[in-house]
Amino acid sequence: MDAFVQSHAQEAPRHQGRSVRSQDQSVLDYLHDVIGTDLGETNEVILEKLDSQVPLIPELGSHLINSGGKRLRPILTLLSTRMFGYRGKQHHTLAAVVEFIHTATLLHDDVVDESLTRRGRQTANAVWGSKAPVLVGDFLFSRAFQMLVDHGDLRVLKVIADACAVISEGEVMQLLASNNLATDENQYMEVVARKTATLFAAAARMGAILNLRPAEDEENLARYGLLLGQAYQVVDDTLDYSATRETLGKGIGDDFQEGKITLPLIHAYHHGSEEERRFWVSCIEDRNQPPGSLERAIELVRQRGSLDYAMGRARSLADEAAATAVRFPASRERDALVKLATFSVDRHH
Amino acid sequence: MDAFVQSHAQEAPRHQGRSVRSQDQSVLDYLHDVIGTDLGETNEVILEKLDSQVPLIPELGSHLINSGGKRLRPILTLLSTRMFGYRGKQHHTLAAVVEFIHTATLLHDDVVDESLTRRGRQTANAVWGSKAPVLVGDFLFSRAFQMLVDHGDLRVLKVIADACAVISEGEVMQLLASNNLATDENQYMEVVARKTATLFAAAARMGAILNLRPAEDEENLARYGLLLGQAYQVVDDTLDYSATRETLGKGIGDDFQEGKITLPLIHAYHHGSEEERRFWVSCIEDRNQPPGSLERAIELVRQRGSLDYAMGRARSLADEAAATAVRFPASRERDALVKLATFSVDRHH
Repeated sequence: MDAFVQSHAQEAPRHQGRSVRSQDQSVLDYLHDVIGTDLGETNEVILEKLDSQVPLIPELGSHLINSGGKRLRPILTLLSTRMFGYRGKQHHTLAAVVEFIHTATLLHDDVVDESLTRRGRQTANAVWGSKAPVLVGDFLFSRAFQMLVDHGDLRVLKVIADACAVISEGEVMQLLASNNLATDENQYMEVVARKTATLFAAAARMGAILNLRPAEDEENLARYGLLLGQAYQVVDDTLDYSATRETLGKGIGDDFQEGKITLPLIHAYHHGSEEERRFWVSCIEDRNQPPGSLERAIELVRQRGSLDYAMGRARSLADEAAATAVRFPASRERDALVKLATFSVDRHH
Repeated sequence: MDAFVQSHAQEAPRHQGRSVRSQDQSVLDYLHDVIGTDLGETNEVILEKLDSQVPLIPELGSHLINSGGKRLRPILTLLSTRMFGYRGKQHHTLAAVVEFIHTATLLHDDVVDESLTRRGRQTANAVWGSKAPVLVGDFLFSRAFQMLVDHGDLRVLKVIADACAVISEGEVMQLLASNNLATDENQYMEVVARKTATLFAAAARMGAILNLRPAEDEENLARYGLLLGQAYQVVDDTLDYSATRETLGKGIGDDFQEGKITLPLIHAYHHGSEEERRFWVSCIEDRNQPPGSLERAIELVRQRGSLDYAMGRARSLADEAAATAVRFPASRERDALVKLATFSVDRHH
């Protein structure tokens, strides 16, 4: 790992006295600065394409799309496209497509998980019930493919269609693993790669395709995106046990309460005493969580070093992502991709 | 309407003493006979493409796909393609795509409607809960687009992507109209055109696209499909008040109990006495359905001539579909399309 990566890997320590949200925001501001007007133009495409004769569709869609998400996936498309000197406008469309696909999966996820809050506000299903988000999610998938057909590049269509199939397989795998403590770390990482990292990889690939770069560049971008997405999800799953509700924008312990099998839980279960294992089985497999269960779970993942273990795993994925990115042509965008890898681990929400 | 259409329009009276299911089956057998091995080959494509590393996906998918659906939409693709003398194999792929899209919408529909039976067996959500069908529906959408990308024709991709967006809009419109007696016949027909007839139209268009026919042929096929699909859905909505559970393969009165606003209900409401209107408001808008409500609703739609009215509307749509079809080149397939129009109204399930 070169000096640039290392210096970034060490910054952003978690100062207790300073708003952690504002630390995160300064990294996002830096990324936005590198991208210039591209993110704003992407947001305009999103707004325009969210339109429908049925007013509930843009209403419900924008409830989630405008809820302060980090736009990491479209940012990835914009950075990777700009990095190779692209001068057109089509990356705005493709970045918007990526955000639509992401939003569709979130709408369906929140229905499936019966989640009530996301990004500090009510989920669509909490506001409109579970029916409309299923259908509006379908609309967003369809609209994304309409935009890709208008764009007219079958290579892009293939990347996105393949990604959508892999994502839905990952979601089904995750559903089947839930409440099942026999799920091991490899199975967990497979779910993470599919349900989250595949779209990061697809978003990053766009840069090579739009610039007609050789296959090697596309593969490296895909590899970077996959590693970044995995790191990002592992951190997400760790924050669910370690963040504060205020910072995270959603309930802490959601995964635990839903019986979702994530890395901190897997580690704590396998390294727990016999009594601790009985606790995990009772909470997760028997779905028996009397008051105090979440507090004990949080205490155990700390005591057993499971949070540190998971963060270590995330950090090594992010380091690998950064090491992949530094091989791209030197540019502000390349540096931003490296910084994004670090941010995926050092963020607080 | 020419003599051929009229003779078909008058056949298949509803003999009480004969199994109505077997009457329906003889029409389907005739359609299968015209198509030859094409439907079997389409089913093989469906089976092959339903495969996934996640076994629940083919398991849940085939639960619905192999539940004895009539395969009308793929049949439409096969007939329209053969009618113009097509000699390739790609219509099997496109017919399978159409069935995948249809199946995905059914999976999501049944979750949204919380339906427990379809085609005489339990719905996927009744067997697996509502979570897996949402995700497997997403997989089927994605897989359909993967198949279209492999096929590589952007015109076909556009037809299907556009159809999917219109369908999801129609589903949202239907959701918004539910339990709302202010919904009028035009709004109802708009929902029907979108949620059902759009896919029939897309399925029929394939024949013109695969045979590189002029735009006029594609438009006529789309028009035929749209009319057929509308007739089909209006009949569906009428059967929900008039069929027997055994014949229909799902519960009678589902629409009434869910507060779905369909043509028989709209007609009966607008032609009812003041007291009858209070009954409808109480049942549909106030969702107050004490024992005996469904029986009274069925009695009222009969007494007010609402079933006859809806069937009349369906018949005139089907007649128009048949009149559109007879203008296609004379062939067994053309005759089958005409017959299919009649069947859409004269069927019993």
